[in-house]
Formats: sequence, C-alpha cells, structure tokens
Amino acid sequence: MLTDQPNVERRLHALGLELPPLKQPVAKYLGCKQSGDVLYVSGQIGDIRGAVGHDVTLDEGQQCAREAVLHILRTVKTAIGDLDRIASVDKVLGFVRSAADFTEQPLVLNGASDLLIALFGADGEHSRTATGVLQTPFGASVQLEMTLRLKPE
Amino acid sequence: MLTDQPNVERRLHALGLELPPLKQPVAKYLGCKQSGDVLYVSGQIGDIRGAVGHDVTLDEGQQCAREAVLHILRTVKTAIGDLDRIASVDKVLGFVRSAADFTEQPLVLNGASDLLIALFGADGEHSRTATGVLQTPFGASVQLEMTLRLKPE
Amino acid sequence: MLTDQPNVERRLHALGLELPPLKQPVAKYLGCKQSGDVLYVSGQIGDIRGAVGHDVTLDEGQQCAREAVLHILRTVKTAIGDLDRIASVDKVLGFVRSAADFTEQPLVLNGASDLLIALFGADGEHSRTATGVLQTPFGASVQLEMTLRLKPE
Repeated sequence: MLTDQPNVERRLHALGLELPPLKQPVAKYLGCKQSGDVLYVSGQIGDIRGAVGHDVTLDEGQQCAREAVLHILRTVKTAIGDLDRIASVDKVLGFVRSAADFTEQPLVLNGASDLLIALFGADGEHSRTATGVLQTPFGASVQLEMTLRLKPE
Repeated sequence: MLTDQPNVERRLHALGLELPPLKQPVAKYLGCKQSGDVLYVSGQIGDIRGAVGHDVTLDEGQQCAREAVLHILRTVKTAIGDLDRIASVDKVLGFVRSAADFTEQPLVLNGASDLLIALFGADGEHSRTATGVLQTPFGASVQLEMTLRLKPE
Repeated sequence: MLTDQPNVERRLHALGLELPPLKQPVAKYLGCKQSGDVLYVSGQIGDIRGAVGHDVTLDEGQQCAREAVLHILRTVKTAIGDLDRIASVDKVLGFVRSAADFTEQPLVLNGASDLLIALFGADGEHSRTATGVLQTPFGASVQLEMTLRLKPE
C-alpha cells in the first residue's frame, strides 16, 4: 500500500522525482552531522557543470539546484532513516558558480527552494543566502549546504 | 514619550539612523526563520553596487555593510515585532564583492560590526567571517547573513 | 608528568605540531562566540598566500588548511581555557582562494579535516562545505570557519 510510504517521499514521487543513488563524500568528512536536534548537512553539488550566465542558462542552474536538493535528501535519508523525521528546513546556503556579470543567484536558488516547499510544506520554508562564487568542486553550477531541525526522537 | 521606544531603536535614532522600508525576499524564501531560540536571518544586500577595490571604495563598501545591517534589522523587526527581543548577535557571514586583488574584506565588514556593537552593546559582539566573492545578487558590494539568539518568550 | 596535559593537546604534540601564537581579530569582532553550548568560531586564515592552482599547489593549500585549524584552536583555547571542553566539531565552512579553473576544493580542505579527526577522533568528524572564492583576507589560500559544540559545564 502506498500509504505506508513516508509523506515526504510520497510527495517526491507525486512530483515525478526520485532520490538519486548515494554520493559518498569525496573526502574526509560526513555527509551530515547531528548535534542535539540540529542536523548540519555538508555542501553538495548538483550534476550540471559550468558557470551560470556563461556556460549554462538560468534554467539549467535551477535544475542543478534541484539536483543538489535531491542528493542532500538521499544523504539525509541514509543518515537518519526517514525524511519524515525532519521537523524543519532552517537554513540554506547556496553557492552559484557565476559568470563575472551574472547577478541572479536568488533566481537560481529558487529551484531548490520551490522543491523544498513542495516536499515539506510550511516546514520547508527556510532562511536563505545565495551568492556568486568563482569556482566550485568539480565545476558544478550550484553547491548547497543546509541546516535542518529534526523531530524529537 | 521617547522612553516608550525600545532601546535598540532609540540607539539607532541617536546615531541619526532609521530602519529602511521592508525589502521582501525576491524569491521563495523567508526573510528569517526561527528555530527554538535561534533566528536564522537570510542574506541581505546593502544598496551600493559594484566590486570593492574596483568600482567602489573601501568607505563605500563599509557604508554598504551598514545598509545591509539596517535592512536585516527591518526584516527582523517585521518578523519578531521588537528588536529588544534579540538576546545576542551570534554570527555574521559577509560576502564582499571584491576586485581580483582586493584583500581587505575584514575592514569592509567593520561597517557592519561597529554598528551592531553600537546598537546592541556587548550582546552585539559576534563571531564573523568575511570573504571575497566574484558576484552577488544585483551586483551589491556587500551581502550579509546573520544568526541571532532571541530572549526566551 | 605528561599525563597532566589535556588529551587534545597531547595528540597535537604527538603529531609534532604546536599551537601558534594567538592572532587577534584584525577588526571589530570576537575570535569566537559562545551561545548556549554552541561555539561559533570566526573565520581564520592559514599563513600561506596565493590562489590554489595558480600561485600555490594543492599540497600547499592543504598545509594552509592545517594552519588555519591551528590558529582556530589557539583562539578557542584562549577563549574557553581547555580544548578538551570541545564535545564535537559540528561544521566546517572552508573558502579556498582558487584559480579560475581549480575545482579540487574538497581535497584542499582534507588538510583541515584529517587534522581535526586526528585530534578529536570520532567527535572531530564534521559536516563540511568547501567552495572556491576569488579573494580572501590578506590573500590567504584558505579561510576556515567552524561551529563547535561544548561539553556541559
């Protein structure tokens, strides 16, 4: 029965999306770290490569932001077992690999914010900073870091 | 009577400053999000545009940092009703749109730090990171993000 | 007797390392700020200067990341008295001053992560974001910010 499926994942599937395979950190750190009821999630990139406004379009940047959210959710699910344990998306920090004259980083990050709100509702509404960096790991167009709050166990 | 005015705003006015009109987030996120007694404030830009060390001077960069603080305080006041509910400024993260050879990001951010300490006293003393990015939303010279702690309700 | 020496510092010395002299913040902010049991540590740079992938090598970038950790630990020790009061390294945010085509920021930050894990064991495992910026204060190759959790007093 589909009703056995956790809520967040059910919404994900209703959007025609699925969690990608787990990407292990490429280095000596954790995918996320729990401290009390705070879950600090490590920076993750989307799959699209290139500077937004030069190599890739705004639309592609938004797609890359969505991909980064999905990679993060896979990491979090692996760590805590169930995405419905997330009480709140508190903070999103997004680095957009930007052409020198590209200043629409907030529009790029909307790709991530819209998806988070679609999945988590009001609990998915978050504070956010989007800025424009020269480079990112693997040259990805978007890199996201999140701070989540978990429900009490 | 002026004594009805909250302390932080009284100090603001004594400095000859006032809160600017509220800037709504240009995208799908909150101006700030409360989680327990932590208030995560979204990145906000000041009004001045251009790369510090190229398009604008250090002085102008400092002014832009002050402007970003004022925009943040307006956002926070709108969200929590009274700036005197702020117990502590815990953390400031500042992105300075920088010329390729500009390395005085900490001096730029002093514009923000000095104002926070003038307004909040010892509670306004904060941890801080200032770094130099290629671009920012709207090409602003300074973008600030803050983590505040609120007094228990 | 060496057994009087706190654990973390004993491990530091066993690695042939020592804490550098304290670097005072160059501006109007704190080296770190405690809020409840969270210790927000201000951004600190390592001693090496230059863009990784252009002026300095990956190895030198890793060395700079290690130096930044040592400066941070000196700052934290000065603030809280004893590094063994650290319960957990929760979050590391690293800005790598990068050549335009340098995309190995995670490898650079491994210099910091490996040292933290050597010093703090499992408690030193952390969430992490490494991104590539145009410039940093003083042109340093690496700038690190950390969020730590302290043991209850």
